[in-house]
Amino acid sequence: MTRKAMPISSEMGWSSVDRILVRGYDLCDDIIGKLNLGDMAYLEITGRLPSEAESTMFNAILVTLVEHGLTPMAIAARLTYLGAPESLQSAVAAGLCGMGTTFAGTAEGAARVLHETLADNPEQSIEVMSDDIVSRYRSAKTSIPGIGHNLHKPQDPRATRLFKVAEEHGFSGRYVKLMKGIADAATRQFGKDLPVNATGAIGALCCELGISWKAARGIAVMGRSVGLVGHLVEEQGNPIAKEVWLRTEEEAHDNAQHEEESAP
Amino acid sequence: MTRKAMPISSEMGWSSVDRILVRGYDLCDDIIGKLNLGDMAYLEITGRLPSEAESTMFNAILVTLVEHGLTPMAIAARLTYLGAPESLQSAVAAGLCGMGTTFAGTAEGAARVLHETLADNPEQSIEVMSDDIVSRYRSAKTSIPGIGHNLHKPQDPRATRLFKVAEEHGFSGRYVKLMKGIADAATRQFGKDLPVNATGAIGALCCELGISWKAARGIAVMGRSVGLVGHLVEEQGNPIAKEVWLRTEEEAHDNAQHEEESAP
Amino acid sequence: MTRKAMPISSEMGWSSVDRILVRGYDLCDDIIGKLNLGDMAYLEITGRLPSEAESTMFNAILVTLVEHGLTPMAIAARLTYLGAPESLQSAVAAGLCGMGTTFAGTAEGAARVLHETLADNPEQSIEVMSDDIVSRYRSAKTSIPGIGHNLHKPQDPRATRLFKVAEEHGFSGRYVKLMKGIADAATRQFGKDLPVNATGAIGALCCELGISWKAARGIAVMGRSVGLVGHLVEEQGNPIAKEVWLRTEEEAHDNAQHEEESAP
Amino acid sequence: MTRKAMPISSEMGWSSVDRILVRGYDLCDDIIGKLNLGDMAYLEITGRLPSEAESTMFNAILVTLVEHGLTPMAIAARLTYLGAPESLQSAVAAGLCGMGTTFAGTAEGAARVLHETLADNPEQSIEVMSDDIVSRYRSAKTSIPGIGHNLHKPQDPRATRLFKVAEEHGFSGRYVKLMKGIADAATRQFGKDLPVNATGAIGALCCELGISWKAARGIAVMGRSVGLVGHLVEEQGNPIAKEVWLRTEEEAHDNAQHEEESAP
Repeated sequence: MTRKAMPISSEMGWSSVDRILVRGYDLCDDIIGKLNLGDMAYLEITGRLPSEAESTMFNAILVTLVEHGLTPMAIAARLTYLGAPESLQSAVAAGLCGMGTTFAGTAEGAARVLHETLADNPEQSIEVMSDDIVSRYRSAKTSIPGIGHNLHKPQDPRATRLFKVAEEHGFSGRYVKLMKGIADAATRQFGKDLPVNATGAIGALCCELGISWKAARGIAVMGRSVGLVGHLVEEQGNPIAKEVWLRTEEEAHDNAQHEEESAP
Repeated sequence: MTRKAMPISSEMGWSSVDRILVRGYDLCDDIIGKLNLGDMAYLEITGRLPSEAESTMFNAILVTLVEHGLTPMAIAARLTYLGAPESLQSAVAAGLCGMGTTFAGTAEGAARVLHETLADNPEQSIEVMSDDIVSRYRSAKTSIPGIGHNLHKPQDPRATRLFKVAEEHGFSGRYVKLMKGIADAATRQFGKDLPVNATGAIGALCCELGISWKAARGIAVMGRSVGLVGHLVEEQGNPIAKEVWLRTEEEAHDNAQHEEESAP
Repeated sequence: MTRKAMPISSEMGWSSVDRILVRGYDLCDDIIGKLNLGDMAYLEITGRLPSEAESTMFNAILVTLVEHGLTPMAIAARLTYLGAPESLQSAVAAGLCGMGTTFAGTAEGAARVLHETLADNPEQSIEVMSDDIVSRYRSAKTSIPGIGHNLHKPQDPRATRLFKVAEEHGFSGRYVKLMKGIADAATRQFGKDLPVNATGAIGALCCELGISWKAARGIAVMGRSVGLVGHLVEEQGNPIAKEVWLRTEEEAHDNAQHEEESAP
Repeated sequence: MTRKAMPISSEMGWSSVDRILVRGYDLCDDIIGKLNLGDMAYLEITGRLPSEAESTMFNAILVTLVEHGLTPMAIAARLTYLGAPESLQSAVAAGLCGMGTTFAGTAEGAARVLHETLADNPEQSIEVMSDDIVSRYRSAKTSIPGIGHNLHKPQDPRATRLFKVAEEHGFSGRYVKLMKGIADAATRQFGKDLPVNATGAIGALCCELGISWKAARGIAVMGRSVGLVGHLVEEQGNPIAKEVWLRTEEEAHDNAQHEEESAP
């Protein structure tokens, strides 16, 4: 073997007999009883404690993504729990696996397009950049990340609220302006209401907080994990997975039998 | 088909055109910008907002479980991300799948034994109940959930700290007393330091907060999901998974080659 | 650090520039074009190639577990694919996570009880051992692994068929006899039809093949992975996940709205 | 609610009291004891039984992907099993989650490019199509799916072997020719050995078998699931996960301590 080994290091945390350090902070002295879960998430992602404004903004982002009712992810988690009630963690894992391009991918995609556009065009006006972005997606016939919602029209109330929190706490900068500009350009070019949606607002606000676009999906995952646990705790007391399963199986069975009977 | 269909219902949340409700609260008016992620988790689990004391206690529990360095879960998540960097959510899922009996199971197990013991023996003294519990596990030769730690001795500093937060906020009730009683009885019966560990403290404090023992594992999952995302964001900038993989594969290869060469 | 490092080794396989070895066999010369997937699975589990009889028996076990229609696992996999169509592997993973105590656990449990009973009581009659086993589960009020089926009565046709294949190929030994004895004892003691089910037959036949009871669950996983992929390929052409999701969400929404309206 | 419900149907399988049907075949009469796992996989994917040639070819593809030693997936599965030994299925799931763009994605990508190229250019010569494909990837600076291997040079022996099996069984058609043509064009254009690799051969042979490119990733998943179970069964007898974990954690700890000590 001739490969030169690379060192393995991590700044996340370590333990000794009487101490646990997390990103340089003492878990017992500095964290337990002092930080809330959102601030802890901020520490994990950035390596430092948030200011009060950052704490409010970051927690606002995190709580937005926790709960959205009986999503495909929540139903998949509940069905998994039905089969493996001894492994609640695996039911959450099953739910998370469905958090792909459609949902978490758009927060990431929005953060990325904002980050790259503003890094590449420091001098350009918001309007020109916005029109360019929309034209590019339009000609590629792909949807613009963070824009439009099939239910929430003409505004996504979560985006409206998040932008208000951002304004109140000093996070309404260029990324927010560009995100709103993209929505305006899309509405103009497509001739219908295409507002910033929740994931678009979250993508923009991750950028405002200085969080890498690559981490944006992770922030969605943090929030949704909390929500999936919530659904499983409800499932413990008010189970619905078995009913979803039986109805699905029975209808498919009835349709399949029918086809067999009508065969020559 | 003769089965009578059961209704499907959920109180977690639902959306209309201009509103998202979560457990009866308006996401935009009552939650975003007002609740931190730990309070949101409390709402998801219990259906109501926490008092200030409950918020401090519950967040203290949640942050305790977020980070413990390069655990098997964190390494598994990083290796998964190496193979599927387009699916960060699946890497978190892979990490969570390893949160089984050894770790999350003990928080659940501790909460369960405390809950069942105090429900069944309302009149008995802590000492008698504790001795009974330890004797039972001792004769079954299985470890007592929430007791003992291979590194943190003679005390687990996280348990010490959590119990202090509990005392300061009015959560140092019978469950905490029984958990400490079990540690004392174990130390006496086995003749060596067997302190309450972090998962034992968390099990007891879930009971004090009125949270079902069945949900205790879920609370561990909420915290650890945040930590796994943290590790993956570090992996983006300071990757170690490839090195862990290559070293493991190379050593196994070297050992296998050696065996082949030394064969007759 | 004072811990003595242990060597890392694996006999599963390794590669050089022009060869891939799997458990000592050359992948290109000995395996590709010569072994079927079930024989490859046998090689992976046991480290050697199966005889013709072993191949037939082991493949019979494997194919039994592949497909059982729209199970909770299959529906969970399809819902996951809806959210993350770019990660088919994660949708299979989500489905597998639900293969817990209820299903895969019983094949393992049956193999374990047969293995341990015959190892501990080499001299006892099948009838006495069977009655003891059933009495033990009966007094513990837990179900006997591998016994009984809510749909397939008075016989599970899969068990009947597997036992026939076993007889034809010389695998109808003591483990099969004990499994059948347990079903007879259960039917006697409970006074109703309690046949050997598919997982009971599989547990017994794993034992007959000399496969560890700890691996029995893995054999179920191998088969079901194939079936879950099958469901996802059907989902690509005939999607049902979105309909399952929407119906579930809508009904929960309707029920929740109704409750709100009827509130004082 | 005004949405029109769509029917739910599935042709995968269903059960009645005394029968289990799988894609129209009787599980007990037609499948158990008659089909091997690879043929069953073929039935699941295509809805019909394979001919002898198809069975040989399809099983050859499947077994190629089962085992490749201590891959990141295999190590992740073993680490997960360490934390949750009661859930072998979740350890396999964790391993599968890492089967992303790098590995399974290239089989899919190769099948897709072959399928789309030949569908769009029925009249063009292999050489012209190959040169166009390579030029396109070259100018996009992305790697060509199915081409090149960092270890296996100048040929990937698995591809060589698979193509030989294809030739012997009548599957060496236009897709195989185009795949080889792409490798030749890549070798010419880049001026170094760029052979067809195993996933490239598999992509081409899926096309020859008439399997949709969208299913190619699923075929990789079927094979690798078998291999991951194999690794976990080895882990039961020859555990290495704990050693991988401890070494990783200790080295990171040592490096972190060092940095702390050297801080001013």
